[in-house]
Amino acid sequence: MTASTDLAADACVVGVDFGTLSGRASVIRVRDGHELSTAVHPYADGVLDTRLPGGRALAPDWALQNPADWLAVLATAVPAAVRAAGIDPARVVGIGTDFTACTVLPTAADGTPLCQLPGYADRPHAWPKLWKHHAAQPHADRVNALAHARGEPWIGRYGGKISSEWQVAKALQVLEDDPEIYAATNRWIEAADWIVWQLTGTETRNACTAGYKGVFQDGAYPSRDFFAALHPAFADYADTRLSTALLPLGAPAGRLTARAACWTGLPVGTVVAAGNVDAHVSAPAVGVTEPGHMLAVMGTSTCHVMSADALAEVPGMCGVVDGGIIAGRYGYEAGQSGVGDIFAWWAERNVPDSYRLAARAAGESLHQYLTALTADDPVGGHGLLALDWMNGNRSILVDHTLSGVLVGLTLATRPEHVYRALLEATAFGTRRILDAFRDAGVPVREFYAAGGLIQNATLMRLYADVLGHPIHLAATSQAPALGSAIHAAVAAGAYPDVPAAAAAMGRVHRDAYLPDPARHAAYSRLYDEYRALHDSLGTAGGVLHRLRALRDEALRGRAGPADGPAPTDPSPLARPVATAASPDTTSPDATSPTGDPR
Amino acid sequence: MTASTDLAADACVVGVDFGTLSGRASVIRVRDGHELSTAVHPYADGVLDTRLPGGRALAPDWALQNPADWLAVLATAVPAAVRAAGIDPARVVGIGTDFTACTVLPTAADGTPLCQLPGYADRPHAWPKLWKHHAAQPHADRVNALAHARGEPWIGRYGGKISSEWQVAKALQVLEDDPEIYAATNRWIEAADWIVWQLTGTETRNACTAGYKGVFQDGAYPSRDFFAALHPAFADYADTRLSTALLPLGAPAGRLTARAACWTGLPVGTVVAAGNVDAHVSAPAVGVTEPGHMLAVMGTSTCHVMSADALAEVPGMCGVVDGGIIAGRYGYEAGQSGVGDIFAWWAERNVPDSYRLAARAAGESLHQYLTALTADDPVGGHGLLALDWMNGNRSILVDHTLSGVLVGLTLATRPEHVYRALLEATAFGTRRILDAFRDAGVPVREFYAAGGLIQNATLMRLYADVLGHPIHLAATSQAPALGSAIHAAVAAGAYPDVPAAAAAMGRVHRDAYLPDPARHAAYSRLYDEYRALHDSLGTAGGVLHRLRALRDEALRGRAGPADGPAPTDPSPLARPVATAASPDTTSPDATSPTGDPR
Repeated sequence: MTASTDLAADACVVGVDFGTLSGRASVIRVRDGHELSTAVHPYADGVLDTRLPGGRALAPDWALQNPADWLAVLATAVPAAVRAAGIDPARVVGIGTDFTACTVLPTAADGTPLCQLPGYADRPHAWPKLWKHHAAQPHADRVNALAHARGEPWIGRYGGKISSEWQVAKALQVLEDDPEIYAATNRWIEAADWIVWQLTGTETRNACTAGYKGVFQDGAYPSRDFFAALHPAFADYADTRLSTALLPLGAPAGRLTARAACWTGLPVGTVVAAGNVDAHVSAPAVGVTEPGHMLAVMGTSTCHVMSADALAEVPGMCGVVDGGIIAGRYGYEAGQSGVGDIFAWWAERNVPDSYRLAARAAGESLHQYLTALTADDPVGGHGLLALDWMNGNRSILVDHTLSGVLVGLTLATRPEHVYRALLEATAFGTRRILDAFRDAGVPVREFYAAGGLIQNATLMRLYADVLGHPIHLAATSQAPALGSAIHAAVAAGAYPDVPAAAAAMGRVHRDAYLPDPARHAAYSRLYDEYRALHDSLGTAGGVLHRLRALRDEALRGRAGPADGPAPTDPSPLARPVATAASPDTTSPDATSPTGDPR
Repeated sequence: MTASTDLAADACVVGVDFGTLSGRASVIRVRDGHELSTAVHPYADGVLDTRLPGGRALAPDWALQNPADWLAVLATAVPAAVRAAGIDPARVVGIGTDFTACTVLPTAADGTPLCQLPGYADRPHAWPKLWKHHAAQPHADRVNALAHARGEPWIGRYGGKISSEWQVAKALQVLEDDPEIYAATNRWIEAADWIVWQLTGTETRNACTAGYKGVFQDGAYPSRDFFAALHPAFADYADTRLSTALLPLGAPAGRLTARAACWTGLPVGTVVAAGNVDAHVSAPAVGVTEPGHMLAVMGTSTCHVMSADALAEVPGMCGVVDGGIIAGRYGYEAGQSGVGDIFAWWAERNVPDSYRLAARAAGESLHQYLTALTADDPVGGHGLLALDWMNGNRSILVDHTLSGVLVGLTLATRPEHVYRALLEATAFGTRRILDAFRDAGVPVREFYAAGGLIQNATLMRLYADVLGHPIHLAATSQAPALGSAIHAAVAAGAYPDVPAAAAAMGRVHRDAYLPDPARHAAYSRLYDEYRALHDSLGTAGGVLHRLRALRDEALRGRAGPADGPAPTDPSPLARPVATAASPDTTSPDATSPTGDPR
């Protein structure tokens, strides 16, 4: 490994962020994190959720990707970024990557995706399953039920529930739906690790995805007995297809092969960092490495990541993983299932076009316009309170059968009032999570925000006022790519560890929004109401659950003989409005929460 | 009085209905209620709510009318209807009228409105106060507080609260705001009685308005002591300006004067029936005269009227009056503060224009289109539940500080789902009222509906399914005018009493909608949820009251120093959307609830 003193003053690293719809590469200067350039490459096949490239139809809730699209990012975006930076590629001393997760694929022993092997291209289970593939929900339900029945200790590390998006549920679906593919699966690997394998020629696994998505805890995966109880043929799942040799984040995974050097235009032998996840890798990009510093990546949903020295079980957290964010510390992840997608739902479905015209006339987006309409209204002046559960609740209730609530409506209520109440509700939801961390003994001391929503200044001010915390903002729009570059710099030996690199290279606008004490006090009174409603309506067996049960029953059968044939959608005629713009809105727990489709 | 056997087979009566924006006259055949013709005359001055005809500005919450507009109806609509009927005016044996209420005016001893006396035209208090004049709310609050403090027995007859719209609050406002006008007021009289005075030349008062709007109970108005406690100069209010000589409904009030005959083109001496109120007079028009038969007049709000033999105190009723609907029976009135105006609020403010375009393409109104989109959806399939309190709750909670609630929202919720949930919520609200009548010992045995909303077949079916009652529909669009004509026929002696006349002349489509047992059962489960939410959120001091208090506080002052100057409206910029079409939507307790502006 190159020692840091050996690096030239103008040494650079490349960070590559693999998103849901595209990948982007940034060239970053090692000494200060300055971004020289960024290039984007959209995936040709995007999200495969209706049919395979060969034409075969997919069932509902499926979401796949084509690994050739990922390699194309290496072959186009990386050289484009280096060209745009105007530097000699020899100046690049390291490359780091981050990926959506859990995006996972079956490969042969040499890493070849099964979908690229002869005869497998038309087999859906041979393709990579994107994070938002939700067809393994029945399998996840069984995993959870079994874990609780057996009193598995690891289930508490995941807020009591693992997601249908994670490795084990998806693998079990492969086994049970297409045993031949499962049998052919030599490696079951996160795309985050697979892309590193393609760069280095050597398989590695990183601590982050293994912990958060692979259920690796205290040095082990769940036991053979556990897997066998799910399905006899599943007993050796972890032993044979995963790996317990995990790299800490920021460690070098290897060096660039000749083939990968040819794709990227970077020197053979360039250091490649261990894989990482887009939300988690963003933390050091905004300087979030210290215990008690929380980063909220705010987009269609919000992902909260925070490190702490203590191990605690926080209600409803997505996971706590040793070294999951910063090596040597416990990394906590929590989440809000709906944030930007709730704003989009309201703005796109429930606002007359006169607002769109007025927004256009003002040169603003509809969201900017709606936000501005009430930006100067006094706290509580609309008389409304909302529960932000239109996409269920991840943290702290871990209940996707919950639904949204609006109270305080009058004939004077206008769409912009509801919109603001929804903005506030998500801020209250964040505060509820901060309360839970505090109560669990891992208090949030500083609050940072990144993601597409931080461009909404009124929203950020509102969060500061609601939380009573200063908001430190990401000072880069490419936080994941910068985070990957920081890990590359550490892997290349430019810094002793990620915190040191983050201190030099992270980009944060400290105290971008400071809470106003009077508004904080006013919001605290509203928050008391939110918390009371949250706690009363969020309990098991309450009105929201009974309504959901009635709905499911109604949609399964029909209520009376006066009705026609059973529809699969409650309103077959109701098609005049476009669906929400983001492709991510179907995910209850988006791990890849940056607001814009990429 | 002419005996019924003396009437020619083709004898007719004229019914005149004075609405909020216009008056209409119908010529009705006595023997069977057949409508020969109807003519409408819009009021030239409509509702005076910004300035007097002379230009003087009015304060907020004021609503006046010009009595000249009412006389113009007699002079134009009545002769036009008779002409359109193609009959000899000599065939008309009686004329009956109904009016909005409480619409009340100050007059000289001879009935001349003070506003028509020299020097008074620019004095707002000299003009008739329309039912929806709400500027006397502080006076009503004092009346209610005093009544409860003194334990006045009559307050229980009005659900524990009298309205700012009623005679006493409006009179107290005149006294305190313009004592000179109060001193000049010789008669303080309902427009319903004033118009009869204009026809007959003799002042009379009817039992309906005196009871419901004048607080006349058990033979007396509230005591001198009571009025004196409100204001010393108010002690003789009832003694000097009202009357205790009340005519039962259907009684003759007198005969047409020469002057009125000249206006109307009807024979001098034609019998004139005692005054009446639009909602109440509609009951016999649809054959509702028996104990336990309830008529719901469904428009922007809903007014429920029902007669019973027993005197009971039903929670939240608007009033119970001896002979208030049918002479000899106790007349009960209840109400829902918001019905059609809630549907309009949602459809006009929260639905994208694509729905309007689709409705236009389908040749439907937006309401028809929205209703049709979910008409065949199974009960409960939208997963939603609403509380229909966007305009407060009259019956059974008598609380206008309550507000609307929506629960069960998801990212899949479309505007038409909320629209249907709002339709259902008003039906649940009606069922809650029926429960209250049942629990008070005056059960509803048959359910009738009139008003603009009965044209919505899906809504009517929904009501039948929710209530579990067949819905009998008004088979006339002019129920008030027909009701007035029925009372004219009784006054003229054509029938022995109103029930007999209603049996012959009433127009009802019995069993227009029958409940479907399976849908009723499904709705009953949703209604259980409505009732639980109604009872928990409707209690004093709950979250809705705290939110309202926070709102009022926020709008009075400002929450923090970061805000600008205090606005009078929470969103001064928010003006892109037209306000609800109906002029009646500001009324919390519309006594004149027929859906369309008239």
